[in-house]
Amino acid sequence: MGEFLKVLNFQEALEQIRQNFPSCKEERVPLTDACGRVLAEEILSPEDLPAFNRTVVDGYAVHAEDTFGCSESLPAFLDFAGEIKIGCEVDFSLSKGQCCWIPTGGMLPPGSNGAVMVEYTEKLGDDTILVYRPVGPWENIMQKGEDIRKGQIVFNRGQLLRPQDIGLLASLGICEVDVLKPYHTGIISTGDEIIPVDQTPMVGQVRDVNSFSLAAAVKNCRSIPQVYPIIKDDFAILKAEVATAIQQNDIVIMSGGSSVGIMDVTLDVLLDFADAKLLFHGIAVKPGKPTMAVKIGDKLVIGLPGHPVSALMMFYIVCAPALKLSPLPVIKAQLTENIASQAGRDDFIPVQLYREGNEWAARPLLGKSGLMSILSMADGYIHIAYEKQGLKKGASVEVYCF
Amino acid sequence: MGEFLKVLNFQEALEQIRQNFPSCKEERVPLTDACGRVLAEEILSPEDLPAFNRTVVDGYAVHAEDTFGCSESLPAFLDFAGEIKIGCEVDFSLSKGQCCWIPTGGMLPPGSNGAVMVEYTEKLGDDTILVYRPVGPWENIMQKGEDIRKGQIVFNRGQLLRPQDIGLLASLGICEVDVLKPYHTGIISTGDEIIPVDQTPMVGQVRDVNSFSLAAAVKNCRSIPQVYPIIKDDFAILKAEVATAIQQNDIVIMSGGSSVGIMDVTLDVLLDFADAKLLFHGIAVKPGKPTMAVKIGDKLVIGLPGHPVSALMMFYIVCAPALKLSPLPVIKAQLTENIASQAGRDDFIPVQLYREGNEWAARPLLGKSGLMSILSMADGYIHIAYEKQGLKKGASVEVYCF
Repeated sequence: MGEFLKVLNFQEALEQIRQNFPSCKEERVPLTDACGRVLAEEILSPEDLPAFNRTVVDGYAVHAEDTFGCSESLPAFLDFAGEIKIGCEVDFSLSKGQCCWIPTGGMLPPGSNGAVMVEYTEKLGDDTILVYRPVGPWENIMQKGEDIRKGQIVFNRGQLLRPQDIGLLASLGICEVDVLKPYHTGIISTGDEIIPVDQTPMVGQVRDVNSFSLAAAVKNCRSIPQVYPIIKDDFAILKAEVATAIQQNDIVIMSGGSSVGIMDVTLDVLLDFADAKLLFHGIAVKPGKPTMAVKIGDKLVIGLPGHPVSALMMFYIVCAPALKLSPLPVIKAQLTENIASQAGRDDFIPVQLYREGNEWAARPLLGKSGLMSILSMADGYIHIAYEKQGLKKGASVEVYCF
Repeated sequence: MGEFLKVLNFQEALEQIRQNFPSCKEERVPLTDACGRVLAEEILSPEDLPAFNRTVVDGYAVHAEDTFGCSESLPAFLDFAGEIKIGCEVDFSLSKGQCCWIPTGGMLPPGSNGAVMVEYTEKLGDDTILVYRPVGPWENIMQKGEDIRKGQIVFNRGQLLRPQDIGLLASLGICEVDVLKPYHTGIISTGDEIIPVDQTPMVGQVRDVNSFSLAAAVKNCRSIPQVYPIIKDDFAILKAEVATAIQQNDIVIMSGGSSVGIMDVTLDVLLDFADAKLLFHGIAVKPGKPTMAVKIGDKLVIGLPGHPVSALMMFYIVCAPALKLSPLPVIKAQLTENIASQAGRDDFIPVQLYREGNEWAARPLLGKSGLMSILSMADGYIHIAYEKQGLKKGASVEVYCF
């Protein structure tokens, strides 16, 4: 396999994966299923929001001009012309000198252009309302179309829909939207030493961790994982399973069998497909150098290292950015100790976050990189770019939280 | 209803909700369904991880002492004693002066205590290996139990399980875990002017936004929402629906009918239940003062304001922290302009985040608080505590991202 070695740097590899990632399909879903999905259409408002002039206080609808100059000592006297009920159309218009009771959310009667809060009024008998504070024109009123105008772009394609966005769509009467379909992602673990998780390993064997951790990570990226049986490093069986997985999924993530070991047949199998194209074989990163990507037809196969820590780190680093519809949250923190790193290679270091006074501190977890417990102790990772030879204690770093 | 007014400050209200929140039930789930769930048990390791001494490089297992002092010019000469296959138990032990080929992940043969990387060796004929760099004892080896020791606490109760945690559990052969059950949360919209989203409002009517936005927000908190039909402000019908919702859920979130308006009957209905206890009615916050909480038996009913913006903001502020099993991500940012606020009241202001050089800037969205479009434009909110009278431009603020 050595002759195929095609090692890229981290940015080039990520770019190759992004460019060769299958395009997302679309589907129409009811609004109740749309939260957390990404819009596949531009949304134009079908109507004005609000649809009518509404008050945002409990009080009296007035002609604002009738209240100008009034005060605690010199209230305005207005004629009480009735009451507006919430949810009802108003069938009268307000003349100068008149006012009417209006509850929060009520429709402003034609003629009026302001609302006085009830706190600044007093009822005098049945017919007269005293107003102790002036209101400006359109004060305490949300005007028709002030929130959203009919025809306005509400959301662009690509918007991740959050609860407040669902609320805005609901308020416009939009009950269905086109969203991106989740990717179907096949997961294959390979290796002669790998056994199912529910079996007890004999000496020399290890459990199939990657099928579990990668499936969970794929789900976190809003993708649908499908896990295939563990395959020994056997060309024919592996090729048959890869063929099935490619056919049933958009992307296939394999782990194991991608280091340059004599028993590794993954790359041979992938390149044996008629329409296979090697994107890269090897990334100048730590951990996870023996990562590779092969395009087969319009599907993408990514081979990750077999070791569970490297496999999951590489998933976060090169697969998640392409799969995921929103990036990992990033927190700024101060590094608590010096970290050495080798120039010419991108390093990804798991860190623990903790509060130090008002700031976040990031403590690098520098134990042996193969320890599963290190990833479980970590809150995220930092990236040391290939041109750097390490970071100093106290440096400001960005922690990609996972 | 005025006589019941019991206004708390924000911290007191949150504390009341937390204290009176129903306790979480538990359930046993397979590991494949455990990601994103919260552990309801302490996990002790049933075994050592790794279960045997493994090499982390491709190369030769050696007695480390045999390589001491060797160099490029003066290699150590070792007898080649065979090859270790990955996944196989080793049935021989290595004598002094011997070495054997071992692939990454292979089991170290008894007797040996280090592994030399293949890069620093050379094969001389069939029987001799030259070693050009010394290794220390246990160098390039992951020792039995070095990752996790048998009996060690792996996770505490309350741990949110991420893909790496699922991986660690899988590597220990743990295939099922006890996790907290999601809360069932009933959602009821009330108000005479509220109509279903798929209907066209007549003048004066508005669509039922809250059932959609609150259900989406509840789902984001890993809870299971159940939406009930919109209820007009009618005591008997509302009481019947609340009774059903309480019976079918752990928590019920109502919206509308909690301002001190004449048509609001929600509090009357809630306090009419035999075992009702008013926790508070009103919180000194903006927006969302007319928020209330009533405990009925062991269930909790939270009444939010009817206006969609206030309802969702109050959900984020007082419901989500209790419901949610992990807090909203917080980002530090610099405020881009002065904000005034009233002392004696906690203010929550939606903000937009953008990058300014290497830092985040938070631009407050200070338009009319009732605009749905403002929440959609916002990336999160900031909290101005009740003792403050505002914040200055340039102040460092924490943005709760939603």
